[in-house]
Amino acid sequence: MSMDVTFLGTGAAYPSPTRGASALVLRCEGRITKIFITHLHGDHFFGLPGLLCTISLQSGSIVTKQPIEIYGPIGLRDFIWRTMELSHTELVFPYVVHELVPTADQCPTEELKEFLHVEKADSTTKEGQGRTILLDLEENSYLLVDDEQFVVKAFRLFHRIPSFGFSVVEKKRPGKLNAQKLKDLGVPPGPAYGKLKNGISVVLENGITISPQDVLKKPIVGRKICILGDCSGVVGDGGMKLCFDADLLIHEATLDDAQMDKAKEHGHSTPQMAAAFAKLCHAKRLVLTHFSQRYKPVALAREGEADGIAELKKQAESVLELQEVTLAEDFMVIGIPIKK
Amino acid sequence: MSMDVTFLGTGAAYPSPTRGASALVLRCEGRITKIFITHLHGDHFFGLPGLLCTISLQSGSIVTKQPIEIYGPIGLRDFIWRTMELSHTELVFPYVVHELVPTADQCPTEELKEFLHVEKADSTTKEGQGRTILLDLEENSYLLVDDEQFVVKAFRLFHRIPSFGFSVVEKKRPGKLNAQKLKDLGVPPGPAYGKLKNGISVVLENGITISPQDVLKKPIVGRKICILGDCSGVVGDGGMKLCFDADLLIHEATLDDAQMDKAKEHGHSTPQMAAAFAKLCHAKRLVLTHFSQRYKPVALAREGEADGIAELKKQAESVLELQEVTLAEDFMVIGIPIKK
Repeated sequence: MSMDVTFLGTGAAYPSPTRGASALVLRCEGRITKIFITHLHGDHFFGLPGLLCTISLQSGSIVTKQPIEIYGPIGLRDFIWRTMELSHTELVFPYVVHELVPTADQCPTEELKEFLHVEKADSTTKEGQGRTILLDLEENSYLLVDDEQFVVKAFRLFHRIPSFGFSVVEKKRPGKLNAQKLKDLGVPPGPAYGKLKNGISVVLENGITISPQDVLKKPIVGRKICILGDCSGVVGDGGMKLCFDADLLIHEATLDDAQMDKAKEHGHSTPQMAAAFAKLCHAKRLVLTHFSQRYKPVALAREGEADGIAELKKQAESVLELQEVTLAEDFMVIGIPIKK
Repeated sequence: MSMDVTFLGTGAAYPSPTRGASALVLRCEGRITKIFITHLHGDHFFGLPGLLCTISLQSGSIVTKQPIEIYGPIGLRDFIWRTMELSHTELVFPYVVHELVPTADQCPTEELKEFLHVEKADSTTKEGQGRTILLDLEENSYLLVDDEQFVVKAFRLFHRIPSFGFSVVEKKRPGKLNAQKLKDLGVPPGPAYGKLKNGISVVLENGITISPQDVLKKPIVGRKICILGDCSGVVGDGGMKLCFDADLLIHEATLDDAQMDKAKEHGHSTPQMAAAFAKLCHAKRLVLTHFSQRYKPVALAREGEADGIAELKKQAESVLELQEVTLAEDFMVIGIPIKK
């Protein structure tokens, strides 16, 4: 299965012609089935109602019964419901909104009052209501998805308001059949092959039992993609555990290292901060995004503007030494190859 | 004063790379001071919270005391309040939301229940609350703005949900001073000139009173720009009265004339319908917008796609005979010259 990440926007705070508001899509199959919102700042979720409408209008007459599952901080469900109602929107697909309950240490205390207020207003039961997901204290993470293909978990970030990161882990898949071994053991081609591939033992005519592990090559390890929302750091060890050994780690870097104090004050990161986390996690590839609009992509920068963005790359690479760091641009596509 | 209209988006229902969601700006001075929402369908107002944030973030450290005034159907204020609160948005300028109360005949009756529900939920008093504006039954319109420069009124349209059109009328300005007449009458250059220009009579040393009308050329007639929201027609005679003799009339034309039944069923117009209204109003220039995404701008159309949009122009012009009709495209700028 091919997997890739497309950056839909890579700018901080507000969209500009050179960088749209931050969003990306992790594509494994055609249809959008799940949407993850890192936090409730406008540049990260104001586009959601419009996105739902556009998906619906572009579906033509195809009515889908499979709901789109939306995950995000508490308060999101009520916002979507009210917005859909006010705009008389009738989507051709159902949706559910699963809400993550943050902890008090994810943001400055003065931001918590409103967050609790939102929680209270959200007590009605309606169609499309999803789960309310609490922190798993032992794992220091939130379990969002566990299906045949993927496990998706969230972890806590520190920002001006509660913010989350997501780790998407592809499940291990059985290895290929070893044709030579099947032949050597005398397994006849046919249904037995399918059973063994699916992990079921078969008994040959000669009475010998063949187990899957006798004839399967080693399992294909799943890929791990980790995407962090706005943050000046992680809360607890959930992030480090979930991002460990990530094939692709996507981290914000709003300002350059010279402005680290300002970045932290606003709950944001610099290239060095992002790279330090990537190093801690032994991430195999770091991609920076969510840049202040002053950092234009090199190809779009006017004279004198290109140095700033090049500097961000150098700052991150100075921490990671031999590893190349990628700076995201709008519509950049990054493939995540199958592991050998 | 220069005036122009810039189309920010000219597509119906959802944005595409060839036509953004419908929006336009009427520019008279630099800053955005007033925002008008025609109706509460997503493609016409979902961008508003983001627009407010972007204006605020781009203001730098300039804190403005003059509020941005927002006008739109009832329900809009509550939406903005809640969205700003949920997203922890702190704008650097104040804003007020003035709500228009529609009448029952502006949409199919089954749409009215929710509209009344929204009205009830809106009874709290908060900072930034604007006026609740009812239909002036005699004028068949809503008075929104009456300042030194402009009078803006709204009129009722028929659509799937309540929709409005807006007429922006520049006030008459005093004519220039007639230098020859001033000389003939013996008015000494100086403060007397300013008084006369501002409509104040002056008494000369010889005892003769000079009235402004003695020395002013004829007043400069104001320009009139009329912008209709989504509609399959107007309700009452308010629209016709307010759009009469418009210098620029901007009307939707979602589908072509061959699909008039479908257009009407969805509360939309075709080029002929738009042109018929322009003709009724003796509008001097008609611009069509809000096209279904199938009608790509000619320059962006692929082979075989360009005929559709050209056909829309022909259909409208067939009604208006000698008058050229303009089809809006994203980022098109239309100047409205000062009247002679």
